[in-house]
Order: sequence, then C-alpha cells, then structure tokens
Amino acid sequence: MKSDPLALAARRLARRLDELGRVSDEPGRLTRTFLSPAMRRANRLVGGWMRAAGLGVREDGAGNLIGRREGPPGARTLLLGSHLDTVRDAGRFDGALGVLLPIAALSELRRRRLRLPFAVEVVGFSEEEGVRFSSAYLGSKAYTGSLRAGDLARRDRAGVTVRAALEAHGARPFALPRPAHRAADLLGYLEVHIEQGPVLEAKRRAVGVVTAIAGQTRGQAVFRGRAGHAGTTPMARRRDALAGAAEWILFAEALARRQPPLVATVGSIAASPGVSNVIAAETVLALDLRHPADAVRRRALRALLAEGRRIARRRGLAFGWKLAQDHDAVACDRGLTRRLAASVRAVQGANSALVSGAGHDGVVVSALAPIAMLFVRCRGGLSHHPDEFAAPADLEVALRVTVDFIAGLAE
Amino acid sequence: MKSDPLALAARRLARRLDELGRVSDEPGRLTRTFLSPAMRRANRLVGGWMRAAGLGVREDGAGNLIGRREGPPGARTLLLGSHLDTVRDAGRFDGALGVLLPIAALSELRRRRLRLPFAVEVVGFSEEEGVRFSSAYLGSKAYTGSLRAGDLARRDRAGVTVRAALEAHGARPFALPRPAHRAADLLGYLEVHIEQGPVLEAKRRAVGVVTAIAGQTRGQAVFRGRAGHAGTTPMARRRDALAGAAEWILFAEALARRQPPLVATVGSIAASPGVSNVIAAETVLALDLRHPADAVRRRALRALLAEGRRIARRRGLAFGWKLAQDHDAVACDRGLTRRLAASVRAVQGANSALVSGAGHDGVVVSALAPIAMLFVRCRGGLSHHPDEFAAPADLEVALRVTVDFIAGLAE
Repeated sequence: MKSDPLALAARRLARRLDELGRVSDEPGRLTRTFLSPAMRRANRLVGGWMRAAGLGVREDGAGNLIGRREGPPGARTLLLGSHLDTVRDAGRFDGALGVLLPIAALSELRRRRLRLPFAVEVVGFSEEEGVRFSSAYLGSKAYTGSLRAGDLARRDRAGVTVRAALEAHGARPFALPRPAHRAADLLGYLEVHIEQGPVLEAKRRAVGVVTAIAGQTRGQAVFRGRAGHAGTTPMARRRDALAGAAEWILFAEALARRQPPLVATVGSIAASPGVSNVIAAETVLALDLRHPADAVRRRALRALLAEGRRIARRRGLAFGWKLAQDHDAVACDRGLTRRLAASVRAVQGANSALVSGAGHDGVVVSALAPIAMLFVRCRGGLSHHPDEFAAPADLEVALRVTVDFIAGLAE
Repeated sequence: MKSDPLALAARRLARRLDELGRVSDEPGRLTRTFLSPAMRRANRLVGGWMRAAGLGVREDGAGNLIGRREGPPGARTLLLGSHLDTVRDAGRFDGALGVLLPIAALSELRRRRLRLPFAVEVVGFSEEEGVRFSSAYLGSKAYTGSLRAGDLARRDRAGVTVRAALEAHGARPFALPRPAHRAADLLGYLEVHIEQGPVLEAKRRAVGVVTAIAGQTRGQAVFRGRAGHAGTTPMARRRDALAGAAEWILFAEALARRQPPLVATVGSIAASPGVSNVIAAETVLALDLRHPADAVRRRALRALLAEGRRIARRRGLAFGWKLAQDHDAVACDRGLTRRLAASVRAVQGANSALVSGAGHDGVVVSALAPIAMLFVRCRGGLSHHPDEFAAPADLEVALRVTVDFIAGLAE
C-alpha cells in the first residue's frame, strides 16, 4: 500500500499544503489576501507545481493562476479549481486543497498515460474570501466575466480601490475582462473543498458529494446616533450608536437560533469616534446570512432590517443598510453530481449527499458551466482557523475519487 | 459697554479659542492628541499669547506648556490651567478655555497694574483625554510627579510606548519627573471649564462653582471565544465573542439607567479577526463608569464584572478585565470654593453649586494642591463634539469672575 502511486501522491499533496500554508503576509500565522505579496509568491509556487504536472501556466489580469493542458482540436474544457487567498489567521486547506488536489490528479493521469478527449484547466482563483475589499469572489467574477464597474470602485481599509490594486499588480491599465471561456466550450467545473462543517465527521466518511450551496446575503448595517461626553451625558439623553448595534447583534443571533440551519453572523464592527470617553456616534457592522432555502434567507433579512429600523426609532438613531452581496442557493449539476457520487461509491463504498453552508467559487462559475463539488472531512468541522485539518488518508480518498471522476468523463 | 476692557478681552478670548480650534492633526475637524504635530503648533501659539501677557514660558519634558509670572521672594504659587489636547472630532472649548481664560485674566490684572503677592503659573497640560494611549491625565501626572513606570510602558495603536513618544518629542532620554512644586509652595489650583452638561443651561446661569468631581473607573473588558466559519458553524455550536460583548454592553446600559446619575459607557470596541465571514474569536471593549458616590461606582463595577463572567460561562467564552484608571470622587477645597462662589455672586448675582460628571486635570492636581473649579454654561450641554459652544457673553462672565477671584486672593 505504501508504494501505491496514489498513496505517495496524497502524501506529497499533504506536504505541498503545508508548504503553501507557510506563504503568508503575516509572520507566525497564515493570511494571504487578494494581490498581496504573499499571493504573488503563492502563484509562483503553485505555478511551478502546475508546470511539473505538464500544464501550461499563466496568470490573468485579476491575479487568477491558470494551468492548462490542451485537448484535441475543438474539444471542450473541464475546469477544476478553487481559491488561493485566505481569511486572516487561516487554516491551510480552505481553497488551497481544491487547487493542489487537481494538480496531483492530473499528474497521476499523465503517469497513467491516459489521453483525455477534452482540455483541462486548473484555476487558482485570486480572491474568494472577501477579506481585503469586503466583497468575495473577485477572482472568479473576473474569470467568468461577471466583474462590474461597481466592484472595481470598492476600497480597502487603506482607501485603495480594486481597480488601483489590479493596475498596480499587473503594472498596466485594467479593463473589465470578458469570460475566459464561452459556456458552450465548457464541460463542467469540479471543486474539491474541505467540508468546513461537522456532517462527514459525524457520518464517519472521508468525502461526500455536494448537491447545493446555501444562498448567502452579506451587507453592512450602520447605526448613527450622537457623540457625547461619557461623564456628563445622562443615560436618558443618549443616542448611543453602539448600544443600538449591540441590540441588533443579539436580535440576529436569536433569529438564527430559532430557525436552524439559518446562520447569521456579525463578525466585524467599528464604532466611531471609537474612544472610551465618548459615546459612539456611529457603528458599522457586517452581516452574513445563509440558508439553503432562498425564501427563508430573504424573510430573515427583512426581519433584520425591520428590527434595525425599530431599534433606531426607539433610540433616536438612524439605521442604514448597504447590500454587499446576495447569492441565491445554487444547485449542483445533476449529471456531473451523479458521476461524482458514483466515483465516491467506487472508492469509499458509500456516498453522503451534503448541502454547503459556505459559499464557494462554484457559485460564480455556475453561471458559465455546470458544477460539481466534492467535500472532504475536516477535524471538528473547524475552518477559518489555524487548527483546520484534513487527514492525509482522507486526502487520498479525495484524490482517488477525483482521478476516477476525470477518467470516467474521458470514457 | 463695548469699550469695557473685559468685554474686549472676552471677545479676544473667543477669537483665540477659534484660532486654537483650527490647530488640528486632521483636516476639516479638530483632533489634537498627546505629543502630536498639532500639539507642538498649539504650544507655540499659546506660548506666544502667554508671553504677550507677561509670562515666562517653558515646556516641561512631558509636553506641558507652562507660563509663569514670579511673585515676591519666597511667595507661594497659584496654579491656573487645563489641557490642550482634545478628543477626536472635538469642540474648541473643552480644555482650551481653561488655559486661554487665565491668560486673559492675568493680562487684565497686569493692565490694572495689580501687584500680586504670589507667583502665578498657567499650565496647558499636554494630555487629559486619554485618546492616544487609552490612559488619561498623562500631562498632569507628569506635572505633579505621579507618573509611574507602568504609564510609560503603555502603547498607542501603532505600538509606540509613552516613553518612546516622550523621548522622540523631547529628543532626549525621559526620566520619571519629580513634582513641579512642593505642596507647601502652592496656594491652590483653579480650573475653568465648560460644564459639558445641561444644568447651567436649565438654571439660566452663565457660570457655577464645582463642589466635587465624580469618581471614575476606566478599563478594558475582553471576551474570548472561538473563530469559526460564518457559513458552516451551526448557531448552537458557536462561541461568539462579539455576541457575548453585545450582551454586556446592554447590561451596562440597563444598569446605569436604573441608577441615575450613574453613567456607564462603552465607546470603543474591536472584534478580531474582524471579517464578515468569520465568527469573532475575541472582542475588546473600553468601559467608562462614573458616579459622585464612590460606593455606588464600586458596586456597579462589581456587578458588571460578575455579569461579564456570567455571560462568558453561559456562552463558553472567557472574560477578562484590565483596570486602566480608577479615581475616587474628589471634593474641591472649601476655602477656595467659598471665595470663588463669592466672586460668582459678585459678578452674576447668584451661584449654582455643581458636581462634575467629567474628570478634569484638577483630579490629579488635587493630590498636590487645594483645587477649585468654575464651570461655564455650554449650549445643549454638548461636548466632545464640533458643535460644542459657549457664548461670548458667558466667557465674559467667567473672565470677570476669574479676575475677581485672583484679585481677591491678592488682598
């Protein structure tokens, strides 16, 4: 078993995930954001591995890393990929696995001298997490031609726009890109990703096939009140924007608790002027709301906005809401998913159908190509955390499934 | 009336407050923090006005601006002053008034050729608001010799310590200073300040004498939970540090509302990692708690810490508390306060005795000298806000009272 080529390949994959996980913008922890210096180094590293697997490598104008092996003339293209950016203080599997595992799979297929009747393209998307510009999927949006002028105008905390960042990165003017492919030229898109949830662990399965990705709404809520002296403004005369925001955070939490699997998260908050002896005049919050049923998600958002207005009215505040992102739930392609499930059953005996609570690049790619997703068990369901972990044995199962899936498509 | 020297002096005082209010570190709004470039410019400007009033001017090692007129040999010193730093987006009266008004008063006494049997020292303290290092009174602490090694180790948001900032400012090593005066050499300290509250406006009086300054506790609370993916971590499995903090903010507000004149303020909050799609692993909050009765304030703090621990236990979080500052209420000196009240009655007919909800440099100076405080009515009780305003006519009353008070001490 130890000398089995796929077992060896899985161990090499684990080592590469470790190595890529050390390519960071921050010392001592993994943070790799859109167009950062670490992202440039990551593209160089992964590009080298793509080349070693026989792929031709390029980077598009949005920093997406693309490794391609041509097929016969006129053949369609199978896309495989995920993202190479990370959250702050991230784990090393989220995103990276879906780029490095296909490289290993194509390497194995080349070792087997299997001639594919289609082209393959492995894509490492440059932006999925939304860390730098509070807007996710910038990489896949550029790749699929769905980036808009409004995306380019967004600013990071330093005030740099997406456009300025792209132009500095590419050292040339940035024009809104057309899709990398016509829909008719694509066979489909496969994304391999850690589950980031507890289901596979509970079911004691290494991998499972995703049937749908939950819909997601992200936006910015703001409460505006009035600054005042913390020592001399009686409680009854305050218009405290932070206290109003605190009420809304707890309302969001209670709302989601009542309707599992609804999840509502406020992960970012800023109060201004933000000093201890001044009552907050303004508080800005980021809301993230997800559910597999679009109607439930929309109803929850309406309830949250109504409550924001109610809190504001009662406290003499103003409430505002700016939508940053709104994705309906996405169903995976039936045909590809059936094939992928067959590969899973062939490798591990049984499949578990899963719904993804997290958004993935596949959400954006689904506008251009049928998509399929394979989830890999991760320890404790933990993700977006340095302790994020998928066992080498599970990586091997995922690799075998992916090889079987591509080989099956070739038949 | 228009040609009355004190009316003219009050108008000049109003113009100087405007001029000083434009000396800022930020374009378009007034922000002047400890040892900043704007503070350096402010000291130059105010130092010029001190010199014009016949004072000898120096700056001590902590950036305090000191204007002194000597008295007869062996005479004691009367201190007058307040602070020249501001909060962010501040008004132009808080602090500045208590430095510029004494200069105007001494100018008038010089015009009258009144020979004072004591020395006078006008002090513009360099730090009272606690903006840069989340620790107030650094200026008056240095002046009175109560700065400690722990104060010097505090860091601003850029990681610069108080010591490093002081050494960069003075371009020389900073040693913990001894008191600027021996207690026996001081006659007393008078601070003139806007009320920053609604009482004088309600009583239709230009000025009032402060009998005591409320006790104040400031510190940093922290909730620690566990980061997690916003899309895949079910609500029931979360340990959300921001939701815990939100509960505590509302508890603090409700507690203070039940016990006026208790005030509890959370004006600053930071959640980390601080991105929209990650559950907050840690949230840090600044608490400011004030009441004229020390026992009430201490009881409120105990209740807040107990509730922090309770919230943490219920939510699987850890709760921590770091005390930044704890001042008991300070009573003003009876003798000086009686004299000041007499001057107030002489100028405006009647006095209003007030308690200060805000801390002032007088709190720190009271360890070294008997203190007295004069409050000036401000519009709407508003302070720590660009609309902060005291009418020129009220400034004139305060100026007349101060001149009368100093002249009375000279008799």
